[in-house]
Amino acid sequence: MPERGSAAGRATIRDVAALAGVSIGTASKALNGQGAMRAETRDRVAAAARQLCFAPNVHARALLGGRTFAVGLITTDSFGRFSIPVMLGAEDALGAGQISVFMCDTRDDPARERRYVELLLARRVDGLIVTGRRIEPRPGLRTGATPVVYAMTQSLEGDGPAVVPDDYGGGKLAARHLIATGRRQIGHITGPERFLAARKRAQGFLDAMAEAGLESSPDDVLYGEWSERWGRKAADVLLGSSPGTDAVFCGSDQIARGVIDTLRRLGRQVPGDIAVAGFDNWEPMVLGAEPPLTSVDMRLEDVGRIAAGHLLAALGGHPARGTHTVPCRLAVRGSTVPGSGGEPAAPDPRGGHLVPAPVSPLPARPQAPGA
Amino acid sequence: MPERGSAAGRATIRDVAALAGVSIGTASKALNGQGAMRAETRDRVAAAARQLCFAPNVHARALLGGRTFAVGLITTDSFGRFSIPVMLGAEDALGAGQISVFMCDTRDDPARERRYVELLLARRVDGLIVTGRRIEPRPGLRTGATPVVYAMTQSLEGDGPAVVPDDYGGGKLAARHLIATGRRQIGHITGPERFLAARKRAQGFLDAMAEAGLESSPDDVLYGEWSERWGRKAADVLLGSSPGTDAVFCGSDQIARGVIDTLRRLGRQVPGDIAVAGFDNWEPMVLGAEPPLTSVDMRLEDVGRIAAGHLLAALGGHPARGTHTVPCRLAVRGSTVPGSGGEPAAPDPRGGHLVPAPVSPLPARPQAPGA
Repeated sequence: MPERGSAAGRATIRDVAALAGVSIGTASKALNGQGAMRAETRDRVAAAARQLCFAPNVHARALLGGRTFAVGLITTDSFGRFSIPVMLGAEDALGAGQISVFMCDTRDDPARERRYVELLLARRVDGLIVTGRRIEPRPGLRTGATPVVYAMTQSLEGDGPAVVPDDYGGGKLAARHLIATGRRQIGHITGPERFLAARKRAQGFLDAMAEAGLESSPDDVLYGEWSERWGRKAADVLLGSSPGTDAVFCGSDQIARGVIDTLRRLGRQVPGDIAVAGFDNWEPMVLGAEPPLTSVDMRLEDVGRIAAGHLLAALGGHPARGTHTVPCRLAVRGSTVPGSGGEPAAPDPRGGHLVPAPVSPLPARPQAPGA
Repeated sequence: MPERGSAAGRATIRDVAALAGVSIGTASKALNGQGAMRAETRDRVAAAARQLCFAPNVHARALLGGRTFAVGLITTDSFGRFSIPVMLGAEDALGAGQISVFMCDTRDDPARERRYVELLLARRVDGLIVTGRRIEPRPGLRTGATPVVYAMTQSLEGDGPAVVPDDYGGGKLAARHLIATGRRQIGHITGPERFLAARKRAQGFLDAMAEAGLESSPDDVLYGEWSERWGRKAADVLLGSSPGTDAVFCGSDQIARGVIDTLRRLGRQVPGDIAVAGFDNWEPMVLGAEPPLTSVDMRLEDVGRIAAGHLLAALGGHPARGTHTVPCRLAVRGSTVPGSGGEPAAPDPRGGHLVPAPVSPLPARPQAPGA
């Protein structure tokens, strides 16, 4: 087997075996985690490999053993803010198993996506994870026997397991929190009605209101855009039609920022007069708000981790089926509970900040601190 | 050469050659872009390969030909908002050449970075691109003969070519725009002084002021944090000490958002009384601002594309050296020129929006429109 680079002094399995004092076959089995041998032997081989900076040729392994320990990660979101944390979680879970991840940004172009899938299959990836920016079902990938898991999206044909955040539960969680803090006349301002996520969050909100015996009707939900501009405009509409409003649950943090802007312009105190909660727990938006914004966190890194787990299970011969929803959490801050979770507290290991959150302590989505 | 999957009906080079009516050698050369042959022959082979969904076994190619057509992309930024566009640009440039990209998120952990580099070298990647969230120099990667290019960061040892945005030029660009629109008493509020990017932007600003014969001193630069909160606080400080301020250039869009908040609270009109410009041209921040924010764009996708070009040149035997700076552009909006660039105009092919920008038309950084 030609070992490219061995001429340039790269260590071979022969060198590792010699240093460890074992046969080439034993060294190979030890490094591949195969075969029965004493732990001491395996450790000695591993130490020799480390000492020699031995890097097994994965291409030779791929041709011989069939597995490439590489996975394709396809996104339609241009690595936008929804798929990034999903991908981070997946990459983290796979990397721990020494599985490398090919990133493929389809830019919402079906032809580009087809070319990527062909290229990934040509590379004999062990499997694929497909992420998106919406939970809306999308056409499934055709990959033959190569397993596919959907994360933050799902297949129209339902032919692969999918992992998505529980938007319905997230809406319920926010509404219950507002109700628990004494609010009674709660409005809901959200994104376009064509988004499944917007409809699910609204339904969760309405069901929590009904459970508490509070008045609210689907007709009261203000569907619009995922933007601050819409938040500004809709808050005017809401206060015009329901001047007694004492809380607003918003379908995104950006909408909530716009709502807070309008409330300030109208001279209403947040949270004194009107509490505001958002959705996404997106750090630059929630910590930049004044007061800092209470928000529903979709735990997107966990969505990615669980998707990676499904893929590993499929590779191990135990494919999952159906759609798995990951419960949301709530990060409580000053926009609903005075004095809560404004200042970043202790740095977390990821470089973000732990936000003090009385109801459910939760780090905000990490964000690079600057240029 | 064992072709995994051929038993399952996967087309082989033999099938492609037969369908195209050429020898296996000719088919192989046509698909690898090697050898002299008529364009018609090459096209016929390509058509046959497409028709049969032929996927060449890249692992066999790697063992035989030495190149793997895979590149490692290492980030310390947890795929944060600075490295994402850089990576998108690099991936786009490499993908056009059918080069696949391994994504590796080191999470600022040197041990994790070392493991990634080992794994990438074990995979015999053709080269590596290293991105960061700051232009600050970092320890260089040790990769032997495998070429490395730095993008949005640079090596302390200067041992690989680096591509970084021109922060100094960006600061100058913003100051000149404010001066050109008639402002004379311009403040500068920015991030921590320990950031090279903050110091360079400030120097560009000060030099443009001096060129125009306007007063400003390094002592007047308000260094602080990359946050809205700092923008809010610093605007109070600035107006307290320089009540005649008629413009503020901010070192980030988040700082600018905070500045606008304080100006509104103080009853100052933007841009009527005081113009405000930011840095980053980060869509959710600039388009969410009221009025929409004029901002310096670092063209991070171009930084990534140029870095990928340097890597391809190195693979072709023409390695670049030194640090290449990419000029910034200015996206002009309503925060400096009344009525400019507020509403998204036409959708751009990437799903973002073209922002009307009288001075330098430029699409804002794309951002997923919602959940």
